[in-house]
Amino acid sequence: MLDRVLVINPNSTDGVTQAIDDAMTPFRIPGGPRIDCMTLREGPPGVESQSDADAVIAPLCRAIRDAAPETAAFVIACFSDPGLFSAREATARPVLGIAECGILTALTLGHRFGVISILAGSVPRHLRYIAAMGVGQRLAGDLPIGLGVTELGDASSTLGRMIDVGCRLRDQHGAHVLVMGCAGMARYRAELEDAAQIPVVEPTQAAVAMAIGRIRLGWGQCLR
Amino acid sequence: MLDRVLVINPNSTDGVTQAIDDAMTPFRIPGGPRIDCMTLREGPPGVESQSDADAVIAPLCRAIRDAAPETAAFVIACFSDPGLFSAREATARPVLGIAECGILTALTLGHRFGVISILAGSVPRHLRYIAAMGVGQRLAGDLPIGLGVTELGDASSTLGRMIDVGCRLRDQHGAHVLVMGCAGMARYRAELEDAAQIPVVEPTQAAVAMAIGRIRLGWGQCLR
Amino acid sequence: MLDRVLVINPNSTDGVTQAIDDAMTPFRIPGGPRIDCMTLREGPPGVESQSDADAVIAPLCRAIRDAAPETAAFVIACFSDPGLFSAREATARPVLGIAECGILTALTLGHRFGVISILAGSVPRHLRYIAAMGVGQRLAGDLPIGLGVTELGDASSTLGRMIDVGCRLRDQHGAHVLVMGCAGMARYRAELEDAAQIPVVEPTQAAVAMAIGRIRLGWGQCLR
Amino acid sequence: MLDRVLVINPNSTDGVTQAIDDAMTPFRIPGGPRIDCMTLREGPPGVESQSDADAVIAPLCRAIRDAAPETAAFVIACFSDPGLFSAREATARPVLGIAECGILTALTLGHRFGVISILAGSVPRHLRYIAAMGVGQRLAGDLPIGLGVTELGDASSTLGRMIDVGCRLRDQHGAHVLVMGCAGMARYRAELEDAAQIPVVEPTQAAVAMAIGRIRLGWGQCLR
Amino acid sequence: MLDRVLVINPNSTDGVTQAIDDAMTPFRIPGGPRIDCMTLREGPPGVESQSDADAVIAPLCRAIRDAAPETAAFVIACFSDPGLFSAREATARPVLGIAECGILTALTLGHRFGVISILAGSVPRHLRYIAAMGVGQRLAGDLPIGLGVTELGDASSTLGRMIDVGCRLRDQHGAHVLVMGCAGMARYRAELEDAAQIPVVEPTQAAVAMAIGRIRLGWGQCLR
Amino acid sequence: MLDRVLVINPNSTDGVTQAIDDAMTPFRIPGGPRIDCMTLREGPPGVESQSDADAVIAPLCRAIRDAAPETAAFVIACFSDPGLFSAREATARPVLGIAECGILTALTLGHRFGVISILAGSVPRHLRYIAAMGVGQRLAGDLPIGLGVTELGDASSTLGRMIDVGCRLRDQHGAHVLVMGCAGMARYRAELEDAAQIPVVEPTQAAVAMAIGRIRLGWGQCLR
Repeated sequence: MLDRVLVINPNSTDGVTQAIDDAMTPFRIPGGPRIDCMTLREGPPGVESQSDADAVIAPLCRAIRDAAPETAAFVIACFSDPGLFSAREATARPVLGIAECGILTALTLGHRFGVISILAGSVPRHLRYIAAMGVGQRLAGDLPIGLGVTELGDASSTLGRMIDVGCRLRDQHGAHVLVMGCAGMARYRAELEDAAQIPVVEPTQAAVAMAIGRIRLGWGQCLR
Repeated sequence: MLDRVLVINPNSTDGVTQAIDDAMTPFRIPGGPRIDCMTLREGPPGVESQSDADAVIAPLCRAIRDAAPETAAFVIACFSDPGLFSAREATARPVLGIAECGILTALTLGHRFGVISILAGSVPRHLRYIAAMGVGQRLAGDLPIGLGVTELGDASSTLGRMIDVGCRLRDQHGAHVLVMGCAGMARYRAELEDAAQIPVVEPTQAAVAMAIGRIRLGWGQCLR
Repeated sequence: MLDRVLVINPNSTDGVTQAIDDAMTPFRIPGGPRIDCMTLREGPPGVESQSDADAVIAPLCRAIRDAAPETAAFVIACFSDPGLFSAREATARPVLGIAECGILTALTLGHRFGVISILAGSVPRHLRYIAAMGVGQRLAGDLPIGLGVTELGDASSTLGRMIDVGCRLRDQHGAHVLVMGCAGMARYRAELEDAAQIPVVEPTQAAVAMAIGRIRLGWGQCLR
Repeated sequence: MLDRVLVINPNSTDGVTQAIDDAMTPFRIPGGPRIDCMTLREGPPGVESQSDADAVIAPLCRAIRDAAPETAAFVIACFSDPGLFSAREATARPVLGIAECGILTALTLGHRFGVISILAGSVPRHLRYIAAMGVGQRLAGDLPIGLGVTELGDASSTLGRMIDVGCRLRDQHGAHVLVMGCAGMARYRAELEDAAQIPVVEPTQAAVAMAIGRIRLGWGQCLR
Repeated sequence: MLDRVLVINPNSTDGVTQAIDDAMTPFRIPGGPRIDCMTLREGPPGVESQSDADAVIAPLCRAIRDAAPETAAFVIACFSDPGLFSAREATARPVLGIAECGILTALTLGHRFGVISILAGSVPRHLRYIAAMGVGQRLAGDLPIGLGVTELGDASSTLGRMIDVGCRLRDQHGAHVLVMGCAGMARYRAELEDAAQIPVVEPTQAAVAMAIGRIRLGWGQCLR
Repeated sequence: MLDRVLVINPNSTDGVTQAIDDAMTPFRIPGGPRIDCMTLREGPPGVESQSDADAVIAPLCRAIRDAAPETAAFVIACFSDPGLFSAREATARPVLGIAECGILTALTLGHRFGVISILAGSVPRHLRYIAAMGVGQRLAGDLPIGLGVTELGDASSTLGRMIDVGCRLRDQHGAHVLVMGCAGMARYRAELEDAAQIPVVEPTQAAVAMAIGRIRLGWGQCLR
């Protein structure tokens, strides 16, 4: 059975792809699926605006179409879920977005979820998406740390801000679970959870977990 | 690593447990987790009322507490998700409910989901739960087939009704994906999907897929 | 006409039952219904977790079934409304929950209601219930005072915290009316209202008022 | 203790007031409150439009102000709840609306409520109000019988239409409880419930029940 | 073509009408519609309570009926939208409310809108209306400046408070756009926007813009 | 003052642009703004899928950037509002989408709006967008006529289907106002309204009306 998951990082920053790849370790077991992570060369260094998100859709869908013959399921590893619904038209294989899967998984871990975003400009985009998903009643809040994607690699500045925002979401906004609102934050999950003392969802891991399930089950996408 | 998933059928009908067990086949692969299905002896033949659902909580939590040392994750295989939040207090292991996971998975397969229930009396219970989950905006409808749990084994009467209700949910209520609202319907997934021509979620499979992911990731439950 | 209301305190703390009983004074008038308050012996000292709430359902329903021949309406006097829907299956008499009636009554007293809970762990349970009721749009917030049920009897520590939380709900969360989120808080209603200067609902009183109305009208429960 | 409830029928049709008065019988018991029903002379024969509803506010508030010294609580007996929030500014006594109380009471009797309206033009007014109340998630539907207020006295044409609409709300819209959407329908409650086999709320009765409770408890209105 | 817009200030404070009239300047161009602003003589100095709002409905509708022959569209220039739905029954001409149009326009300028109100007592009235409009999911918050209508003319006290409240809505409540919650605030739009650095909607301008569109298009009101 | 509105039809079908241009007639008055309609050459014949919608974003934003120096406001004339939020990043000029403006305008014309779509596949895309807008509570339904964009020019097949779907939205789904869910339907507005006897919104007209208002007022876009 074809069981390769292709995780596509739609930004061109290899460090992010590497961090995602490291986060895949728990899924790489004997007999388990092959999980490949690729950088979308045509992407911007970071998807930080709606324009960035929209601009990657075409090359992303091309990459998905190209890889479809040898891929069982796709994961779009950007918290804007860029091109998710176009991609589902581009292939009959399951395509999952990390925002969608990260948030849905969070709903099984706590009542109200908080999202830690990179920049203030990301928040309205997330709010539109969460509303479109129909799960806004469960949202505690979405707050930015004020760092761009390429700055996330610097743990000295990033982790502290994530903990600060996470604790504000917990204490002032009533979050019971946190979702990291950027694939580039993957490496900080355990430390953030230790500090915040509430569950923390790394969304690419959440999406790949669901993708593996879909491969096993052989369920396709809605094609009507 | 401990990687056994224990799927507990809270009703005492072995035929249902057997059907669930058959549905687990796709997850049983070399290197994959061990998936055991058990019948809750103390349960009623079918969980068809709120009283039935509430009555199984105590024995269910006992079974979970007893099995926790050798179990990595639990799935409560009844669409009322009986005792889900009590069970999460009873163990630090992940506990997932099939209604919650079936519905969340459906949200990745189509915009509006329809639920096929067993009896009319189940519908308000589902509606309360879907509202508590905060995903009611995505609900197309929840319609019963008018058969009890123990009658589901008879394919001659069951499948036709499921297809009829599924098509009504699709055509009159605007459902883009269907969720089978009882673990005892597991065996009819493929045929129903063929007939309705929209994705059909078998909720125990959806829950076990998410449970396996949780085991791999080692994420616990909200314990605050 | 049978016109006894039985108010069941599902925890085993007699002090709480006594406080509830005191709160019934306004309803005890010549020609008025008989109002009896009982302690559920099998209950825990306080219903503080989902497990506590679920564990009292069986003895509670037994008590209701036993008392049904000489009782016109039942009130479950715990803000988790444990077993409310099971109890409605157990008897054709009206059964009302204090959370449901306290919240519905609050909706007639102010636009946004705030809930004062005992412990932080109660909040998600309340949020699930308020969402299930479909009235979450009216919720200003739900904040805990950090005291368990058996500690509520100590006015020196309790009242001050209730006032503090009540004022925060009013000033920071925009509450126009407060609901006391535990039957054991009954005795503090007047003092809290004086301090907060917005209406305060004591939920057992709200539920008994509605129960008396139901007895007069002879309306049964939804039995379909 | 002052314990008179004044029920004001804001339309000028004495037959409606008489029907309301008859519906008060269950509340008139020795030791119970005095319940007076009055016709608002300045009202139109029926409140059938928004203009009708708005036009009665001034005389209604005058009547309330005039009667306040000898009245403990007021009920506005028109399903548009005309002037409810103005009336609450006009007096410190509790003022309850029959739409609000009828709907809130219905929420304790079934999950989804259906409203039986008089004319099609009433429906958007009800929908605005139900949305303002924040309980729209529980609404199954609101359908008109196509008769004006003054035509409701003719049982031969009215009851059959009410049963027809009630059954459509139950079967096609999923209502578990019905609310009669006009005070002038009061006399048909029992027959409608017998025919529809789901609970039916007569809203003036629901409101008076809550008003009596409020008098007993001495709770005022939100005055901030 | 008849293309006069009549903007009615339902309070009797000429200073407010004058401020509104000044705000109409951008719409007064050669070939453009005639825009007249009138003071409702029968109105109170400011519409600050529900009673105030309800009391102006009758004279407002009379004024509308009187002016209909020579008016193409009406704007009710009070943020409570008093009598909006009655007025729509009083004339077949378009009638727009400034709260409705101000809020709908804000939805095109930012994701979450904040409302700056005059008095704390206005807030629940606004919340009911925003909920009735069905756009509460987009509301960030509604906060008062604590000044009555007739005090708004004093820039020294008003503007500072508006900026303070606007910045709190932006920073603590997450507003992306502000709506000025009183016609009497019209003159402060530009200064407030400069200070808050997010778009600010002056609602009478928003309403007149939509009214002019409706005149051009010749679309009537819902008359069913 | 620069007062040109540029209406961009993102599909390449000149007949649609022509129909839009004809619909602009009411706005073309002496002293009024210049309204130009352009066909996006790079677009597909019709925007019928998410892929179509996403694919036009890049050329659409280029066209907007190119035209910005001589354009005061832009309207994206496709009911999927493709690229609306990217376009708002591409220029400081106001950019309005016809779906957003058509729906918001409908909210001033009736309580529940129905959308007439071209193809069944458009419906989930619309539902996501309406939910993202936060106005789903006002949606009566969204039904397709089963014709593609390029088929809309044939009045013999199109108008009848639109009337049929419009009447179903009105009678079975409770719509009080209809929104035409494709720019290519513009020419049928008056006939549809005559047939359905409820207001019909042509969304490009609604958007241009709002765009003209924005030009007059000089309000920019949210740029934070």
